[in-house]
Amino acid sequence: MRPRDFTFGENGDPLVLDSGKVLSPVTVRYETYGTLNPRGTNAILLLHAFSGDAHAAGRHRPDQAQPGWWDAMVGPGKPFDTNKYFIICSNVLGGCQGTTGPSSTNPATGRPYGLSFPVITIGDMVKVQVRLLDHLGISRLLAVAGGSMGGMQALEWATAHPDRVASALVLACTARLTAQGIAFNAVGRNAITSDPLWKGGDYYGGPVPARGLAIARMIGHITYLSEESMHRKFGRRLQQKEQYGFDFTDQFQVESYLEHQGDKFVERFDANSYIYISKAMDYFDLGEKHGSLNAAFRRTSAKFLLVSFSSDWLYPPAQLKEMAFSLMREGKDVSYAELTCPYGHDSFLIETERQGRLISSFLETVYGS
Amino acid sequence: MRPRDFTFGENGDPLVLDSGKVLSPVTVRYETYGTLNPRGTNAILLLHAFSGDAHAAGRHRPDQAQPGWWDAMVGPGKPFDTNKYFIICSNVLGGCQGTTGPSSTNPATGRPYGLSFPVITIGDMVKVQVRLLDHLGISRLLAVAGGSMGGMQALEWATAHPDRVASALVLACTARLTAQGIAFNAVGRNAITSDPLWKGGDYYGGPVPARGLAIARMIGHITYLSEESMHRKFGRRLQQKEQYGFDFTDQFQVESYLEHQGDKFVERFDANSYIYISKAMDYFDLGEKHGSLNAAFRRTSAKFLLVSFSSDWLYPPAQLKEMAFSLMREGKDVSYAELTCPYGHDSFLIETERQGRLISSFLETVYGS
Repeated sequence: MRPRDFTFGENGDPLVLDSGKVLSPVTVRYETYGTLNPRGTNAILLLHAFSGDAHAAGRHRPDQAQPGWWDAMVGPGKPFDTNKYFIICSNVLGGCQGTTGPSSTNPATGRPYGLSFPVITIGDMVKVQVRLLDHLGISRLLAVAGGSMGGMQALEWATAHPDRVASALVLACTARLTAQGIAFNAVGRNAITSDPLWKGGDYYGGPVPARGLAIARMIGHITYLSEESMHRKFGRRLQQKEQYGFDFTDQFQVESYLEHQGDKFVERFDANSYIYISKAMDYFDLGEKHGSLNAAFRRTSAKFLLVSFSSDWLYPPAQLKEMAFSLMREGKDVSYAELTCPYGHDSFLIETERQGRLISSFLETVYGS
Repeated sequence: MRPRDFTFGENGDPLVLDSGKVLSPVTVRYETYGTLNPRGTNAILLLHAFSGDAHAAGRHRPDQAQPGWWDAMVGPGKPFDTNKYFIICSNVLGGCQGTTGPSSTNPATGRPYGLSFPVITIGDMVKVQVRLLDHLGISRLLAVAGGSMGGMQALEWATAHPDRVASALVLACTARLTAQGIAFNAVGRNAITSDPLWKGGDYYGGPVPARGLAIARMIGHITYLSEESMHRKFGRRLQQKEQYGFDFTDQFQVESYLEHQGDKFVERFDANSYIYISKAMDYFDLGEKHGSLNAAFRRTSAKFLLVSFSSDWLYPPAQLKEMAFSLMREGKDVSYAELTCPYGHDSFLIETERQGRLISSFLETVYGS
């Protein structure tokens, strides 16, 4: 699980993006857990969501406050069982946690890319992961797995590289970003670009557009929770007060929480990465890319596990069910489960028990076959 | 319908706010439609939502681009029939369309209040309306009616001034702002206060915090629509392009629409009013104020019409149903209808036909009795 870097494209063979532009060099930050078996048939690629990174499980140092983003799911005896499987997780293209993105140095100028970084897609993120797997000598994955934007990458893997994927686990996901999803992303980007410190994306080396990025994160955070989970967690309670004072020091707990989440996010995330990655999600439309959703799934030979969460209003169960029906129409092997769960879109990160059982038994059927 | 101003508190008898602070003078901008009958029994007070104003119907000049905000509902032969009823609509306290608010002159300093304006509540808005009705010589209203924040005022009228209200029409509303509602408001306020041009609220006479206010409006706008209405209206279509160019000139229609709405809003709304009015909504909790929702409704003798809209996810039908059940438990006369309608929270402004029939027949039963 020690992070490693792999760089490609330095001496030719650059990354050709969906836009037609080329990018080189490209560095990929990744971590692995468990051991690749001699035949190389036990590799699982975990795909992180919007603000995730390569650090899926464990702690880099014993004193690290938080373990990896899917620690409850990845490890010995856990659903992604590192006694059996070789787990890989890499930071996405456009990110800011070790993989090349807008904060990386543009070799043409010797300065950070900023907005000279090319616009990327979910497909481009997957192309980088393909290069990483080539480098690791893994020709075929036992599984690709991810929630939210991670699920989009899993769908892209299964349909763009069907020969390299035995199964796909797609959680809390959609086959295309809806107008509402685009709208939330657009407001977040507007918050960032309206921050005078953003400076057209050329803020590196100086103060960052912290307020804009924090507001973008606050908006996102609301969409990751549900009304019910917010009500359970905060209700209408005030922060550090019993009674209304009817002045601006009255703050509800949910306000303080969101502001805290926004401020914390700024410490670990790059504002331009927010812009590029959210734009990549906006473009995501699996059906449009292949003519129709049925046509997209016709290409795949992977076995599918689709999991939705009842309270996820960002990518509601109906959107995963639509995918399940489409896969069935194409005669594919698909399991679909809707878990009743109050935590909203974030359920895939929080509801580990029932989701974990579904995942471990699904993986066994694929690994055993 | 020509706007008029009424000012009180100049010579004593100031407005005593829920906070205990006093405010004077207070000017109220209002409009009326139709004629008060000799016994004064046909008066209806319309209560506007967050960004509304006193101009409910008609045009002030023939060349005015948009008529009043509820023009489809107010006029001769319309549900709020000006051949029968005397309709009053006033701009709320804290607003910026003629009624005293943070952009008004603070008599103590001779300069705009800004953040020296006291924090206000929905109850305070209603107290100002009570003064206006006293001034107009109307002791008892045939009805109070409003959607969204207008519905909150109607609820406040019926419970705080039960002797002055014969009926209350409450549309697309909630008895208390939820944690999620507070969260959306908080992000909007943060967008405004993060704009360097906001200057602690003291921006009058200089450039206004336009970007922050536009972003707050964009967030609000998403909550007023539904996923379905956004999908119908915009889908994933690009603005002025047929195909993705994979650069930042690619803009989805929904993005352009939101940005346009944000920019338009800045021309007519004051950023500090956004802060004060959203804060007033955050405080709104009818049950908490009276001990319980049942206790609140126990006080009222009004007849109620509650209307919810199936696609309203900001104040979902369940929240209005809860009020209907509470009113029934208290033995009150209540009609509840849920209209199946795709337009989200804004349905009360858009779905005029079925809503109109409900309103006109409800008003007839009250007026006739």
